Amino acid sequence: LTVFLFERPVRFEEVDAAGIVFFGCFAGYAHEAMEAFFGELEGGYPRLILDRKVGLPAVKVEMSFVTPLRYGDVLVIETSTHRLGNKSAELCYRMRLRDGTSIAEVKHTVVSTDLAAMRSCDMPADVRATLARHVST
Amino acid sequence: LTVFLFERPVRFEEVDAAGIVFFGCFAGYAHEAMEAFFGELEGGYPRLILDRKVGLPAVKVEMSFVTPLRYGDVLVIETSTHRLGNKSAELCYRMRLRDGTSIAEVKHTVVSTDLAAMRSCDMPADVRATLARHVST
Amino acid sequence: LTVFLFERPVRFEEVDAAGIVFFGCFAGYAHEAMEAFFGELEGGYPRLILDRKVGLPAVKVEMSFVTPLRYGDVLVIETSTHRLGNKSAELCYRMRLRDGTSIAEVKHTVVSTDLAAMRSCDMPADVRATLARHVST
Amino acid sequence: LTVFLFERPVRFEEVDAAGIVFFGCFAGYAHEAMEAFFGELEGGYPRLILDRKVGLPAVKVEMSFVTPLRYGDVLVIETSTHRLGNKSAELCYRMRLRDGTSIAEVKHTVVSTDLAAMRSCDMPADVRATLARHVST
Repeated sequence: LTVFLFERPVRFEEVDAAGIVFFGCFAGYAHEAMEAFFGELEGGYPRLILDRKVGLPAVKVEMSFVTPLRYGDVLVIETSTHRLGNKSAELCYRMRLRDGTSIAEVKHTVVSTDLAAMRSCDMPADVRATLARHVST
Repeated sequence: LTVFLFERPVRFEEVDAAGIVFFGCFAGYAHEAMEAFFGELEGGYPRLILDRKVGLPAVKVEMSFVTPLRYGDVLVIETSTHRLGNKSAELCYRMRLRDGTSIAEVKHTVVSTDLAAMRSCDMPADVRATLARHVST
Repeated sequence: LTVFLFERPVRFEEVDAAGIVFFGCFAGYAHEAMEAFFGELEGGYPRLILDRKVGLPAVKVEMSFVTPLRYGDVLVIETSTHRLGNKSAELCYRMRLRDGTSIAEVKHTVVSTDLAAMRSCDMPADVRATLARHVST
Repeated sequence: LTVFLFERPVRFEEVDAAGIVFFGCFAGYAHEAMEAFFGELEGGYPRLILDRKVGLPAVKVEMSFVTPLRYGDVLVIETSTHRLGNKSAELCYRMRLRDGTSIAEVKHTVVSTDLAAMRSCDMPADVRATLARHVST
């Protein structure tokens, strides 16, 4: 399958004063899923950032929320690539419970960036290959 | 002026492993600006949530990023109301440095919600009045 | 063995402006290990909190730091019970890398609390039994 | 007075699933107060970290909790220096509400550190002078 699966229980401190998961946490969930998605790179996402000094900063993020997420829930995240260019890509994260209840969807446009110069650069071949393996149409 | 101004220095722990502010923090910045925006309610946003049991959960958030934000920067957030309905509203947060450098823009659609029933409800009159005072066109 | 093991990669956004994991994150790591430690309760820690309305708020936390933790590291947490009373307990979390490098130690005194009344209460039998199984001397 | 005052409203997302402020947030509150405490340095704490590459990582933190903190509360933090050495210092943060209700106390031992070498170093004169002005006995 092209979709990459990642599971993640809600943490105690992710709840807000309204008793549901704070909406800002979903950007972190998306990034966590992306880190796992790039786990197949040699050294994973950490070595890309720290040794190769290439990162994937967000230029655009769209999040839509369907059902409130609560403490005790386990979030299932289905990550796929929606658009793949030479320097940028759009990742999509469908977030649901194990029983299929839809929680949220996050679309995340990233740009391959030389972190030393903080300038866009061509996507490294292995990063692009990982994204290409998970293109959903 | 219709725009509501809020200033906020970047905190030490908001930086990520790439050396810039984590993109997920911007949702928190938007919420912080919104809490300040509703400071004119009696008891502010906290009493709305805790006593009146009405909240404004997000149903949609769009964030676009222009310039990386760094530790030492002070973020200036200009909050205004883009769309105002009976039960929902779209808030817009223009985020910049004091020198005018554009950092990010966040659009945030919220729905007036009875937190006990977790069901949408008509917006309380004072909430609506605050939003109405800051409509930008 | 009495010690409960929990592993956890450092997340991208846990790094601070000095380039190492923010010291405040270690309290969250300890809590995460504690939630896993109580995973053997029926419904785990979430049901204890949400349905049985009993929690274990901290009254005292001592953290000592040995080696800076960095992005890319995987933290191994060894949780054990240092002291066990009728209403309170002290948990100890030894935090290290997989290669044995010592990172930090956290001691965490919690008090069994009726969350509705926000008053201390006798520890539920299953909570106490879990703690008792992991007493280290 | 030797004590440095800092005020800070509780944020919406700092509440946990038990409905009170997550205990891990208090380390962040302490750091925030410390950043403000060092605001009198030229360029503040950010320039110390980013340009002078000197930081004050924690080697020990002790937190004790008296009264649960809630959304809607404003935290008042009184920062003072408890011990001042050549390379290390102990800061103390008394945290209370405006009405005097005691919330928590944090003791925070920091070591002056050359961040490039990640090795302890003599405390810069201006850092030491700030600490010296706030010694409480």
